[in-house]
Amino acid sequence: MLALDQVLPPSATVTSQGHLSVGGCDLVELAEEHGTPLVVYDAGALRAMARTYREAVARHAPGGEVVYASKAYFGLAMLGIIREEGLSVDVASGGELHAALRAGFDPARIHLHGNNKDAHEVAAALDAGVGTVVVDNLHEIALLEREAAARGIRQRVLLRITPGISPSTHAHIATGQSDSKFGFPLAGRMAHAGVEAVRRSPHLAFEGIHAHLGSQLFDLSVYRPAADVLAGFAVEVGPGDITTVDIGGGLGIAYTADDRPPSVDTFVETLAEAVHDAWRAHGLPLPRLVTEPGRSIAGRAGVTLYRVGAIKPIEGVRTYASVDGGMSDLLRPMLYGAVYEPLVANRADAEPTEVVRLVGKHCESSDVLVGEAHLPPLEVGDLVCVPATGAYGVSMASNYNGQRRPAVVFCENGASRVVTRRETYDDIIARDVL
Amino acid sequence: MLALDQVLPPSATVTSQGHLSVGGCDLVELAEEHGTPLVVYDAGALRAMARTYREAVARHAPGGEVVYASKAYFGLAMLGIIREEGLSVDVASGGELHAALRAGFDPARIHLHGNNKDAHEVAAALDAGVGTVVVDNLHEIALLEREAAARGIRQRVLLRITPGISPSTHAHIATGQSDSKFGFPLAGRMAHAGVEAVRRSPHLAFEGIHAHLGSQLFDLSVYRPAADVLAGFAVEVGPGDITTVDIGGGLGIAYTADDRPPSVDTFVETLAEAVHDAWRAHGLPLPRLVTEPGRSIAGRAGVTLYRVGAIKPIEGVRTYASVDGGMSDLLRPMLYGAVYEPLVANRADAEPTEVVRLVGKHCESSDVLVGEAHLPPLEVGDLVCVPATGAYGVSMASNYNGQRRPAVVFCENGASRVVTRRETYDDIIARDVL
Repeated sequence: MLALDQVLPPSATVTSQGHLSVGGCDLVELAEEHGTPLVVYDAGALRAMARTYREAVARHAPGGEVVYASKAYFGLAMLGIIREEGLSVDVASGGELHAALRAGFDPARIHLHGNNKDAHEVAAALDAGVGTVVVDNLHEIALLEREAAARGIRQRVLLRITPGISPSTHAHIATGQSDSKFGFPLAGRMAHAGVEAVRRSPHLAFEGIHAHLGSQLFDLSVYRPAADVLAGFAVEVGPGDITTVDIGGGLGIAYTADDRPPSVDTFVETLAEAVHDAWRAHGLPLPRLVTEPGRSIAGRAGVTLYRVGAIKPIEGVRTYASVDGGMSDLLRPMLYGAVYEPLVANRADAEPTEVVRLVGKHCESSDVLVGEAHLPPLEVGDLVCVPATGAYGVSMASNYNGQRRPAVVFCENGASRVVTRRETYDDIIARDVL
Repeated sequence: MLALDQVLPPSATVTSQGHLSVGGCDLVELAEEHGTPLVVYDAGALRAMARTYREAVARHAPGGEVVYASKAYFGLAMLGIIREEGLSVDVASGGELHAALRAGFDPARIHLHGNNKDAHEVAAALDAGVGTVVVDNLHEIALLEREAAARGIRQRVLLRITPGISPSTHAHIATGQSDSKFGFPLAGRMAHAGVEAVRRSPHLAFEGIHAHLGSQLFDLSVYRPAADVLAGFAVEVGPGDITTVDIGGGLGIAYTADDRPPSVDTFVETLAEAVHDAWRAHGLPLPRLVTEPGRSIAGRAGVTLYRVGAIKPIEGVRTYASVDGGMSDLLRPMLYGAVYEPLVANRADAEPTEVVRLVGKHCESSDVLVGEAHLPPLEVGDLVCVPATGAYGVSMASNYNGQRRPAVVFCENGASRVVTRRETYDDIIARDVL
């Protein structure tokens, strides 16, 4: 019924009062109870997406592994769902590692990522017993070898490589090209040198390669040429030596009604076929496949609710509608020019007959959430819902302008629970020493 | 001696060991003691800049007021210095109001700002007794009148207007144009309607106007035409009715050695002459002048220290050097394309003979602190200092990728004190409800 059906969480419906509901919970009631801005997740959708990935990998790449990229949203409740659904988790810092351990993950299911892991992070990861370290550079290999030797262990590693292939996406989130801070380029045989460095390290066990091409991809045609390049590298490294291929994440989600991302099944099937075909064509034994979805698990399941305050029609220019959050809780529009399509949660069945600029409350002109929002005529107190904010929303939140970071609520089968409490003004200055 | 003399804090020197020092404190020692990333302020420079503004206003606009724009950096220690130096403070949210009160500000010296103040914020401000509310829109005037009436008080207000004049600066921080979320445009006589709405409100006392044109300005030529427009408006409103003109902030600082911002004295003199001349030309009694510096007080006084980890030369492409912070503590490069000029704090006298891309540790390609950093040959463990990060640095910090927000140290006369402790991993997940 809603134009935004593919953008809203799957459980989204409109109640008889015209209220938007998610996970069986009336968003208008949730906003009244918990205040705004409020981030609401369809917890069932999170579970379903995790399961969909697990099943797709079981179908198209049996024995493969789904590793949730926790940077998308690393709330403990989220990590708990990921753990319960049997996925692994990737962490890119000591902070994400801490959260994953606190959420009860078996350390063997944790992958440590990052282009600049420091000695403390490596030590914490080895002490915890993380399953896999995705090594990014020669400095890290030396550091990891030293720390592993000190502990008398042999650490499984994947080597992160950049195949020199760029997908169609925003430059900020393209990672496959050689001119990248991430990994070992195939160009100049740096990746070969990386494999050699791992092989020379008695406390590191070389399992394979990692190649993340980019994020928010709709066009999956990049995977075939990339897999071909990777298979060629696998031959050079030594047939059979690369037993694991982690092709990263990258599946895009619909932020607007016009977006048509591939399904998870198509995504996984495409990756798997690309890798399998390339490996077969090079006469190699098939590797174990790993994929690292983040956004495509968390993104669509989350929405952000804002209360409309000042509405300012400027004759001959446009109408500005201000809400009670902004760049402190949703940075993607300012950082990447990301486009969102909001709706009015308390009149979800009203026709979007007007175009307004939806702005935040920050003292900054860039604080524009939606440049051209198609909405019904707004009134003060309306509840605006911005869909598809489940990934890279609260995970990038700040206290800019003294804003408190929002509460997060999980909804499922009509029941809601606060999984992250709203920040207080005292929280914001709690680290200040008087 | 240093090429970056105008960019570093005024007290910056190089010790006999070649270490950069700020406020008489060796930055290499500070980094060893407190860890990195570390934000270090020259507290004396903060005091001096506050005093310079106060003296410039006393000289060029006697009776005027300097209001520190706390969004630039609202640490309690910073606010304490601002208070001690006799400046007022502007707050743009309940959070900044809370911090200013906690820092001991006389509420009469607090100005409440914001394009979307909510009922709680207005109530908190009135309960505290803030001196001035800068009203932004008709919705707010009604809200403020209601809350002031409920308390039986008469609240001093300035009306924020947009004169329809755009300065030369980044579109993200230009605010003077009519197409703005801020204030009442003169276009369409919206500003006239705003004045009328205030006048009709028995519990609001109309004191004058506020017009902030934009930020990080070097070219001050915009102030004369703007003042002329404002004076014309003052005549229409009623000669003598506008007793206060708050011309906002906007003075730029040097982020690179090539930047040549005007001095504070020139800035204040230019504002004052522009307003005084325009008011005289229109036959009006001279108003009280208010200015709201933020960046130009806090920016140059602060530096951020990072430790160099992985260094990755990619043949034929470039060298990447990774540090232990990034977009979580310094967002301006990613958000505005801001350019910084770093140096190596532990070899501050070394020649910058190489060009490297200085990147952060976040799992994101956009996490580039300096695209082309001119530095001496880097080694693992080097301490990189990014100058001029005192404004819009930690105030925009996040926990993205599970990064802990940095500690902040104030240095003065060879003594250092931690004014904000480093976040812990537990802090990051403290609001999560298990």
